[in-house]
Amino acid sequence: MKVAIPKERRADERRVAASPETVKKMIGLGLEVTVEAGAGLAASITDSAYSEAGATIAKTAKEALTAAQIVLKVSRPLDKSEGEDEFALLQKGAVLISGFDPFRAGAGLNRAAEAGVTAFAMELMPRITRAQSMDILSSQANLAGYKAVLDGTEVFTRAFPMMMTAAGKISPANVFVMGAGVAGLQAIATARRLGAVVSATDVRPAAKEQVESLGAKFIAVEDEEFKQAETAGGYAKEMSDAYKKKQAALVAETLKKQDMVITTALIPGRPAPKLVTEEMVKSMKTGSVIVDLAGDNGGNCELSEPGTVVQKHGVTILAHRNVPSRLARDASELFARNLFNFLQLMIDKESKSLKLDWEDELIKATCITHGGKIVHEGLKEIAGKT
Amino acid sequence: MKVAIPKERRADERRVAASPETVKKMIGLGLEVTVEAGAGLAASITDSAYSEAGATIAKTAKEALTAAQIVLKVSRPLDKSEGEDEFALLQKGAVLISGFDPFRAGAGLNRAAEAGVTAFAMELMPRITRAQSMDILSSQANLAGYKAVLDGTEVFTRAFPMMMTAAGKISPANVFVMGAGVAGLQAIATARRLGAVVSATDVRPAAKEQVESLGAKFIAVEDEEFKQAETAGGYAKEMSDAYKKKQAALVAETLKKQDMVITTALIPGRPAPKLVTEEMVKSMKTGSVIVDLAGDNGGNCELSEPGTVVQKHGVTILAHRNVPSRLARDASELFARNLFNFLQLMIDKESKSLKLDWEDELIKATCITHGGKIVHEGLKEIAGKT
Repeated sequence: MKVAIPKERRADERRVAASPETVKKMIGLGLEVTVEAGAGLAASITDSAYSEAGATIAKTAKEALTAAQIVLKVSRPLDKSEGEDEFALLQKGAVLISGFDPFRAGAGLNRAAEAGVTAFAMELMPRITRAQSMDILSSQANLAGYKAVLDGTEVFTRAFPMMMTAAGKISPANVFVMGAGVAGLQAIATARRLGAVVSATDVRPAAKEQVESLGAKFIAVEDEEFKQAETAGGYAKEMSDAYKKKQAALVAETLKKQDMVITTALIPGRPAPKLVTEEMVKSMKTGSVIVDLAGDNGGNCELSEPGTVVQKHGVTILAHRNVPSRLARDASELFARNLFNFLQLMIDKESKSLKLDWEDELIKATCITHGGKIVHEGLKEIAGKT
Repeated sequence: MKVAIPKERRADERRVAASPETVKKMIGLGLEVTVEAGAGLAASITDSAYSEAGATIAKTAKEALTAAQIVLKVSRPLDKSEGEDEFALLQKGAVLISGFDPFRAGAGLNRAAEAGVTAFAMELMPRITRAQSMDILSSQANLAGYKAVLDGTEVFTRAFPMMMTAAGKISPANVFVMGAGVAGLQAIATARRLGAVVSATDVRPAAKEQVESLGAKFIAVEDEEFKQAETAGGYAKEMSDAYKKKQAALVAETLKKQDMVITTALIPGRPAPKLVTEEMVKSMKTGSVIVDLAGDNGGNCELSEPGTVVQKHGVTILAHRNVPSRLARDASELFARNLFNFLQLMIDKESKSLKLDWEDELIKATCITHGGKIVHEGLKEIAGKT
């Protein structure tokens, strides 16, 4: 049974859906793996590394995809509305496992159904223990949090650590991380590693402990309401408007003292919340830097221009798209493992053929098109709209 | 007495010769400080920060330099052969304290003499204890070593630290630092901070201890000859050709396993030694990175193209010019302190006027032009040649 790894064709996408390691593992499952020539180049993986791992190298996407029953991709194939129709090369009935960005897929969803592929959107993986090793959102957010700090240092005119030199002291940089999820926690750890003084905030009082365990200061109005919410644990309780107001004022004060701010707030399927207003940017120090990790979703800062680096009011604001792709080798390595771990569920070890267990909640939750139709309930209504 | 801080005009020069801190100190010495408008902008220092510190802001270089008896600069003023004649604005008899790059100054040396300025080249500062706080080579090399690592991470497709994730392990990056001087040691410290596995080499056996104290592995053929040289201490003994050959072979083997190589070898007044040959680059891993800190001096790698980033044989080679300037705020902060510490020696505290003590070895060693002539013995022969 043939598995195809075509080269990614979206702008800003440097990742690839298999690594030499996962190629070997797929061959171990009895699969034949074909990789399109050059598919790994932007991720520093050569064709020869794939062939040494046992893959066949196909000269073109067409050659790679012909007769492939399984197709692994990082990003959703392009549809005609995006300039090129990658779906046209997929075999009817093929299984497509990919990052799909399903809530913004629009025409791509209909096209997947029409192409007759059984498509799985990795973003829809249930967040349960068994599926952790298949969780592309976590694996990629972790690397994005790391890269956010380094992207920030690229434009920052100062060093992070305190340095004692013959010409006197250099003060450490102050870094503030907004949102302490997977990306935020890795950003905290990385900024700390480099020697910055780090603080962080999150709407979940339960994040306090995690932030502090990384040696950063948690910024929150710690009144009675906070303490109750903290012990109640995590998402449970929405804070009062009075609390939110006090907290916003504290964050605004905090921003004025920072050298670098890293924002990581995302709401699945919706535009990113605006955490940093123009007023706040104006209050920041000349030469400070905002790294907005929500660039793909419109940005957490009012002044962010997704895909670009801008200077506003003396502050440099970065809102790169597809940040994990900026660390393409490691991001591919982990993404490929996520895909492989999921694919494994679908391969019958005896017959070495596809066997989809529709009772498996992971299969059910991630399948978006099958038998010519959109089968995911939550997506039916948004299909065709972008 | 007026001190002028003009804006730097060379390409790639983002630093500035004074900071708000040194402006305050100069005013404390009884000097009047004038800063050219926008002089600090590229280093994230606003005109208002200078005026709050007590400086006068001049609209133009001419206005800043008119009647200035002391001029502080980061880089040597441009001469006509470089497109613009900054010397024309300097007052005859003025004291110019600056980085001068004297061994490559050529026509600039003659022009300084002809302009009748008393010029001090900060690079010529004796490396003695009393002058440590005036040592621009050390203060800037330290920051260059830090920035080298971060410049490398910008193009590196992997993360530095080992990461344990739900999708399995990411291995740490292997970083090799060639040359363990001020820049090399800071590069080692920074790469270690970020989580890399670091090794380093240096032609001085005495460097072993410093490298190891930073948690890095020292790469050297540790035979009898090495051990004797090590105890003899530092520069004392040139190694035999047989030793050099064994050491070169070991370095070549080491390079094959690296993800990032940072080269920091400089020989004052001469082109940088070529440490990394094309053959060695070819032997390196696809996706690995060479950061060549000797870009301003022709580079330590045969394939470096100073001022640019190139890809050769699957390896990305960075050879930025003026690396300290890429961290312009902190580099200016330290450079300004170096200049101030030296300037202090020239100011008579009672009369608040210039008083050059020609018996002071720091003044003697750094003065290159005075009374219309080139006065530095070592430079007379190279004047006029570039």
